[in-house]
Amino acid sequence: MAGSTFGTIFKITTWGESHGKALGVVVDGCPAGLPLEESDIQFYLDRRKPGSTSIATPRKENDEVEILSGIFEGKTTGTPISMMIRNTSQHSADYGDIATYYRPGHADYTFDQKYGFRDYRGGGRSSGRETAGRVAAGAIAQKLLRELGIEVCAYTRSIGPIQADVSNPDRSIILSTETAMPDPIANEKAVAYLAQARKELDSVGGCMECIVNGLPAGIGDPVFEKLDANLAKAIMSIGAVKAVEIGDGCEVSSRRGSENNDAFCMENGAVSKKTNHAGGTLGGISDGSTLLIRAHVKPTPSIYQTQETVNQSGEEIQINIKGRHDPIIVPRAVVVMESMTALTILDAMMINMSARLSSMVDFYRK
Amino acid sequence: MAGSTFGTIFKITTWGESHGKALGVVVDGCPAGLPLEESDIQFYLDRRKPGSTSIATPRKENDEVEILSGIFEGKTTGTPISMMIRNTSQHSADYGDIATYYRPGHADYTFDQKYGFRDYRGGGRSSGRETAGRVAAGAIAQKLLRELGIEVCAYTRSIGPIQADVSNPDRSIILSTETAMPDPIANEKAVAYLAQARKELDSVGGCMECIVNGLPAGIGDPVFEKLDANLAKAIMSIGAVKAVEIGDGCEVSSRRGSENNDAFCMENGAVSKKTNHAGGTLGGISDGSTLLIRAHVKPTPSIYQTQETVNQSGEEIQINIKGRHDPIIVPRAVVVMESMTALTILDAMMINMSARLSSMVDFYRK
Amino acid sequence: MAGSTFGTIFKITTWGESHGKALGVVVDGCPAGLPLEESDIQFYLDRRKPGSTSIATPRKENDEVEILSGIFEGKTTGTPISMMIRNTSQHSADYGDIATYYRPGHADYTFDQKYGFRDYRGGGRSSGRETAGRVAAGAIAQKLLRELGIEVCAYTRSIGPIQADVSNPDRSIILSTETAMPDPIANEKAVAYLAQARKELDSVGGCMECIVNGLPAGIGDPVFEKLDANLAKAIMSIGAVKAVEIGDGCEVSSRRGSENNDAFCMENGAVSKKTNHAGGTLGGISDGSTLLIRAHVKPTPSIYQTQETVNQSGEEIQINIKGRHDPIIVPRAVVVMESMTALTILDAMMINMSARLSSMVDFYRK
Amino acid sequence: MAGSTFGTIFKITTWGESHGKALGVVVDGCPAGLPLEESDIQFYLDRRKPGSTSIATPRKENDEVEILSGIFEGKTTGTPISMMIRNTSQHSADYGDIATYYRPGHADYTFDQKYGFRDYRGGGRSSGRETAGRVAAGAIAQKLLRELGIEVCAYTRSIGPIQADVSNPDRSIILSTETAMPDPIANEKAVAYLAQARKELDSVGGCMECIVNGLPAGIGDPVFEKLDANLAKAIMSIGAVKAVEIGDGCEVSSRRGSENNDAFCMENGAVSKKTNHAGGTLGGISDGSTLLIRAHVKPTPSIYQTQETVNQSGEEIQINIKGRHDPIIVPRAVVVMESMTALTILDAMMINMSARLSSMVDFYRK
Repeated sequence: MAGSTFGTIFKITTWGESHGKALGVVVDGCPAGLPLEESDIQFYLDRRKPGSTSIATPRKENDEVEILSGIFEGKTTGTPISMMIRNTSQHSADYGDIATYYRPGHADYTFDQKYGFRDYRGGGRSSGRETAGRVAAGAIAQKLLRELGIEVCAYTRSIGPIQADVSNPDRSIILSTETAMPDPIANEKAVAYLAQARKELDSVGGCMECIVNGLPAGIGDPVFEKLDANLAKAIMSIGAVKAVEIGDGCEVSSRRGSENNDAFCMENGAVSKKTNHAGGTLGGISDGSTLLIRAHVKPTPSIYQTQETVNQSGEEIQINIKGRHDPIIVPRAVVVMESMTALTILDAMMINMSARLSSMVDFYRK
Repeated sequence: MAGSTFGTIFKITTWGESHGKALGVVVDGCPAGLPLEESDIQFYLDRRKPGSTSIATPRKENDEVEILSGIFEGKTTGTPISMMIRNTSQHSADYGDIATYYRPGHADYTFDQKYGFRDYRGGGRSSGRETAGRVAAGAIAQKLLRELGIEVCAYTRSIGPIQADVSNPDRSIILSTETAMPDPIANEKAVAYLAQARKELDSVGGCMECIVNGLPAGIGDPVFEKLDANLAKAIMSIGAVKAVEIGDGCEVSSRRGSENNDAFCMENGAVSKKTNHAGGTLGGISDGSTLLIRAHVKPTPSIYQTQETVNQSGEEIQINIKGRHDPIIVPRAVVVMESMTALTILDAMMINMSARLSSMVDFYRK
Repeated sequence: MAGSTFGTIFKITTWGESHGKALGVVVDGCPAGLPLEESDIQFYLDRRKPGSTSIATPRKENDEVEILSGIFEGKTTGTPISMMIRNTSQHSADYGDIATYYRPGHADYTFDQKYGFRDYRGGGRSSGRETAGRVAAGAIAQKLLRELGIEVCAYTRSIGPIQADVSNPDRSIILSTETAMPDPIANEKAVAYLAQARKELDSVGGCMECIVNGLPAGIGDPVFEKLDANLAKAIMSIGAVKAVEIGDGCEVSSRRGSENNDAFCMENGAVSKKTNHAGGTLGGISDGSTLLIRAHVKPTPSIYQTQETVNQSGEEIQINIKGRHDPIIVPRAVVVMESMTALTILDAMMINMSARLSSMVDFYRK
Repeated sequence: MAGSTFGTIFKITTWGESHGKALGVVVDGCPAGLPLEESDIQFYLDRRKPGSTSIATPRKENDEVEILSGIFEGKTTGTPISMMIRNTSQHSADYGDIATYYRPGHADYTFDQKYGFRDYRGGGRSSGRETAGRVAAGAIAQKLLRELGIEVCAYTRSIGPIQADVSNPDRSIILSTETAMPDPIANEKAVAYLAQARKELDSVGGCMECIVNGLPAGIGDPVFEKLDANLAKAIMSIGAVKAVEIGDGCEVSSRRGSENNDAFCMENGAVSKKTNHAGGTLGGISDGSTLLIRAHVKPTPSIYQTQETVNQSGEEIQINIKGRHDPIIVPRAVVVMESMTALTILDAMMINMSARLSSMVDFYRK
């Protein structure tokens, strides 16, 4: 079905395949009056661009965004913002041989089962390139959130066995390291670890984290539209993510209540919490503390070792994947996580505006 | 907003508070022709009923379901199935004192921030009792899935430090143990561990798991409506769940690609996989293997120890929570996880029916 | 599918059949803080109650509403408001014979084609009784709109050939006439006309109209979610409505632009219009004038004359419908039109709150 | 909000303004396997192209569509189909003066009220050019429906006082007349009438009609998602439409039941109806007869006579609109009506596939 649309009021629709003419996104429901130009978007796209560091695929894409609608005299008008990125570096020939068999860890087999056939060039719609549209949309969401005093920041927490110190993530460091770790020392170790893995024709998994500061309490809805539920969907919809944690996440299952409860306290005249095991939500609604989401990402499934699989004729075969592939997904996915988090929060904030009768009365009878 | 509705075609809407007159659910979009009576639903509701085992709250609720619409001559008609459970055991007096302060780990504070005030009796809408409606709806989804050859089964994987052997979960054992573990020996240890925790006026976290067998390949959509994304939302929307994993989940972040990829092979003339690290999905679409989802549940926030918090006047105070509370959430939440999984899968299967033009042509031109 | 839910943020789900145990509605997304009790709802339900006037079916239903959730200490809490009306006057025996054939003008045949069978008692889900849930929900929407300074008022414009004077509709007259006409003289003629039709074993069609005063300019969205488009859907979803007009409606197709354009002017320092051919919307967005919607309703399909039809065995037969039927639908449908209009407008007003960045900034940074 | 998306499973999102860089649409949820190329789309776009006949605006647009994604080896893949039309003939200068005042009958004022400002060039998003995206999407829907044996056909029924004979509409005649009337004689009169209106610096309203043949019985849902309700929304969302009728429409309100009921009969061994006053739906569900929808369209609001209005400073002024405007909207809107009808029906058919348990069992267990 229509699985390419995300959000209720701030709604995005992405389109495009890895090796088609272009990729893009339509952002509908953006409030009128936000100053916006292509460079606002480009900054974020450049963070997921391939070919920019030693550890990423040498595939070069300029990923230059063009805004086609929704802006007038430098500001959003409230109508859909359509953005497009032309594909410029397509080596379709590299992919010809994968037309006939199913790559382990990829969606080749499941696409064939669902649709009867597939655009096999570079993974088609299930390619990581699909996320370019998410990032372009997320750039707008982040710019808007900043107007509301909210900062979203994602980074790499670990790569294989290498853990970064994430106790105080600094955006300028995150933007400067090849791995998007907020820890230059761990970054160096991780780069070495990745070089070794690549030498062994292998790939590596990793963990990424996203924090949100400045989010007011009261955002998110009870029951099915819990803020954490929507974040879990948003983040799990990023290809290769296999687990999502909120706050202390998996650790809570081996804890006692007396350890895990966050005591409320007063701080500068406002309600606060002494700890933040909950990661910023209670009952699915933001509690005013830092929101914290963690995602575990599998190793790139395309590796250069010989692998066993079957082909479309039902024969067991051995394959050697060619093409240009990152040894790790995480550093380029960090900005995608940031984008999906921003989109989810912004939409929840819009929906929240009619939660109280008094707010509606103030809004319409002022 | 409208956070109480779940699903696109098989759509459920739950309602009701812990201490209101009743709770219930409306199931819309159920296909016509499914034999259904109240006992089909009651069986599942009894699995989450309080007061049924030594380890659960002594609060007694009969939780008797009444079907109010949508059935004619013993079968679903395709119109909404409304189900109601009257609340019969309300000790609202127990909750009077919590009106004025915020219980740690509960949604008291966040509800107040969102709505300006709250129904404080027993947690109101954020009570675990809200899930009764989900379970009633899930019972229908499970009955329908069984007609399609699909079995959904959830169980307790761990309680505090006690791990169950879940290598071959047997539904009859799961239904027979107090903890819903598929492992009688671990169950015994867990019961003892819980008794100890209760004695220490404390509560315990745990982990639950759900598997789905018989699901055909091809279910779920690429991009935002990935099957795992929708499962993540569904499961994370259960109160107290703080992490969701698909397949090997968190472990993938420290793996190599060569370890993590599942090789395709042929088995009885059909495509299969040698391993199932992926947990049954590739690219967000089911691959025909067993689907596996895991959820980490925090300890019950209501504990009998003295806790620190603040009241609505902004004073730091110490509190002692009264009332009747489970020392652990998991055993009663297992059937909720099963329900949410069944609802998600069934909806995805309905949506999938128009994925291929040839299917539509067969359907309408036969 | 799930065709029983209406609205995006203010979302209602109705359920129940004519001759089942009960009917009802769940209202989700109602802002917290609205004073609400059963009598607020009952007033509206009584307006569509059968058996209350000489011209309606003698079927007696008390239609007593019970609020089951979502209210605490006399106010809405922001959580779902579930309302139920028990069916008390069911003469199912009257309907036994219609199980085997298709009544002309009814949904018997189409339900059978869609679902394979049907609940034939009193029309089941396609009965006019289904609208009780809409009216209960609409009562809440109207109470809330009144807090925002907005009045919704529907009335009967014509019955068969009898036209009412609707130039200045007065709610107290509408509530006092059997036909819901705002014109006592036309009402008298219409009552006589209906008596004559009934004597001739026939039924009569009619036209109803709804106006909205106090609606600010700027409500509704361009393109697919135009305010008039959503009103058209809302009103056309009322059984027996076959045409919906906005403003001058059908007449515009034979007009010149110079006649049809409404000139803007200044009135008391505010932008106004000299005429209101448009009926209160321009480009799908409210323009601050009175909103005007008109609906044409077919004659009750159940008539006492002998009719030709076919039965489920494919034989052409003659039938005589028994049971208790109104000779006209309109007077009882007027309150349904009012309800659907109120629900549509309220939802659009909630969605509109994030249309401008400056509004969001004011809301969250005040 | 996000008002630019239409449909549940077959979902389209349009974007673009009259005088921006481009316009377009993303079609998501199209089944895999439909042969599709740009010429399939271009045929429909050419039918709404300006500048093609004597009676339309002399503004020339090539309106050349480019398919950017979703097609592989000549067939749809099941992933989003993005289509773009570059704007090539922009005379923005013509529109400079309308920046400061509100044109009667246009959305200038309401956009300003909603968003705080507007893209005033050529109406921006509220321009008729917005429908190019709908038509491109509708072209796909129509091609797909034809595979299911369903034909959608719209035409002009009347222009001002000139009525066409529509008793047997022939598509080749519709495509050949300047007015899209299926009646060459009426067409000639209408062309003369329009020439006269243009001479008088005036514009003209009209009525268009759409029929659907081959639609099976059982499509559409009871209650809110009635087929006629969704059609009403779809058609009323076309700019300038002020009334929508199904079947005999407005006429039913002055009828007797004995006249209006359609008797069922047998025809070639199948259930049929002797008449079709209902226009192909009963209870919101298709009944297997021809579906008939009618729409009344207001005269083009841009006329060359002097008009009264107010400017943004709140002064009453007189204006003379310049630019290039059609004297009538209908002939170019006919293909938009056809598109919206096709989109609505196709989506309803997809949703209908899970209406019966037996269909799901057949689908998944065959």
